[in-house]
Amino acid sequence: MNCDRCKDKAVYTRRYSGESLCGRCFSQSIVRKTAKTISKYNMIQRGDDVAVAVSGGKDSLSLLHVLSKLSKSGGYTIRAVTIDEGIPGYRDEALEIVDRYCNDMGIQYSVLSYKQMYNTTLQERLDQRTDNTSSCSLCGVLRRQAIEQAATDADVIATAHNMDDYIQTFLINTMSGDVSRIGRNIIGASRRVQPFCNIYESEIVFYAFINDIPFQSEPCPHMDEGIRTSIREFLNELEEKHSGIKNNMNKSIQKIANYVQDTKVRKTCQVCGQQSTTEVCSVCRMLERTA
Amino acid sequence: MNCDRCKDKAVYTRRYSGESLCGRCFSQSIVRKTAKTISKYNMIQRGDDVAVAVSGGKDSLSLLHVLSKLSKSGGYTIRAVTIDEGIPGYRDEALEIVDRYCNDMGIQYSVLSYKQMYNTTLQERLDQRTDNTSSCSLCGVLRRQAIEQAATDADVIATAHNMDDYIQTFLINTMSGDVSRIGRNIIGASRRVQPFCNIYESEIVFYAFINDIPFQSEPCPHMDEGIRTSIREFLNELEEKHSGIKNNMNKSIQKIANYVQDTKVRKTCQVCGQQSTTEVCSVCRMLERTA
Repeated sequence: MNCDRCKDKAVYTRRYSGESLCGRCFSQSIVRKTAKTISKYNMIQRGDDVAVAVSGGKDSLSLLHVLSKLSKSGGYTIRAVTIDEGIPGYRDEALEIVDRYCNDMGIQYSVLSYKQMYNTTLQERLDQRTDNTSSCSLCGVLRRQAIEQAATDADVIATAHNMDDYIQTFLINTMSGDVSRIGRNIIGASRRVQPFCNIYESEIVFYAFINDIPFQSEPCPHMDEGIRTSIREFLNELEEKHSGIKNNMNKSIQKIANYVQDTKVRKTCQVCGQQSTTEVCSVCRMLERTA
Repeated sequence: MNCDRCKDKAVYTRRYSGESLCGRCFSQSIVRKTAKTISKYNMIQRGDDVAVAVSGGKDSLSLLHVLSKLSKSGGYTIRAVTIDEGIPGYRDEALEIVDRYCNDMGIQYSVLSYKQMYNTTLQERLDQRTDNTSSCSLCGVLRRQAIEQAATDADVIATAHNMDDYIQTFLINTMSGDVSRIGRNIIGASRRVQPFCNIYESEIVFYAFINDIPFQSEPCPHMDEGIRTSIREFLNELEEKHSGIKNNMNKSIQKIANYVQDTKVRKTCQVCGQQSTTEVCSVCRMLERTA
């Protein structure tokens, strides 16, 4: 089969559109779609200093790859920030991959560890934990604030959340009854942007593959095998039978997020002074709970 | 194990609350929950003539059973209306069950057929259909208007949609990208009410079972084995692992439905003169398409 765009040999069929594409045209389509998302939601301005949160996985290294192409014409600069949670073995390998990749690409790169920031590692906290806090919720709360810290001077923080992540999070919030979080998921001009939010996870894997991006594919040893995995598998099965369903859901969710307003008032954390929706912020509560 | 309420032998464990109940206390809890839903959403007023749409399945016959208990103290009257789509064999058995049940319960009962109303049967339309209209969407469009017709003089039309139906419909609308339909699903004072909207499907089956309600359990021969079945099974698996998830989703969806407004303007159908959101209503378009 030949590429529908250039007539080279096709290597990818995009089921929801019926298009067959060669590797080069597929890559171009991902870069263009990302550019369109950035422009549609006004995510990045000319002159911006963009900090890309890079874990070493397929999504974040692909985002770095795409943004390094787009940054020239977009007139902005990019740099990578990585958070070292302190997961012996696992995170060390990722740090090496990111370090080597950024060196090869000529991208400035910095690491901030939980140890530097919170004087603790994820492993220590997991060992100390006395309640049933999941590893992902513990880590996620700490990581969010660490990324903010690592990117203090940046104009924009870009994360590599893809369309699948976005839909899964919507369903998890719906299933937990936490509707106001849906309102916090509005895509639009904000300091935290997700340029891959309209791209299928499966297409990012393929992008990384055909562009020889050396990502870490082993999952985190503390990966929460909870509800997100069930939701991911269910949506993948549905997409297999009814291709385009994820695209439709993504559009619905973006509309719903615009309707639902985040009614929580921003306060100042009484412990650390950071912005918070509660008297004591989620980080300080998490550190207290797992002390 | 004993009933947590009366110390009789327990026959049902409500996993999401941890309660163990005997048959009588379980039945009472369903009746009370329905009463609470009716009152919370102001569904039925004293003096109302309530037409209950009865198919002959567990949900609608259980609704009739519950409402016949509640109607006395609520000061309203109930009657049953059944739509005969014209499905040889299947619908005939249901009509017999409903007829006998209403006679036994002393409930007034009427039948309106597609033949009387549209001068066609579902079977004829399914045989004539030239496009890929699903049997459920064809039937659903015709049934909705038929119920309105059968209940023209009633103050309220009660349907037996349960919590599972409600959640499935939300996900189907999300997956089809049709967000405005979510806004049409607001629970509240309207002529069409769903007193079972906060009750698990599984608990309605059990209610019918312990109250010896003689429902038809065989599914419709034209049942659409499409996406609703996949969604039902997925949600049942999740509820099995994380009990209470459907309750949470139901609350989220009711909040979301209140945020999302149905922005479609009501017009008059150019063919039949009924209310419609389009120039020609869905019934006339469906009849035209399957003629």
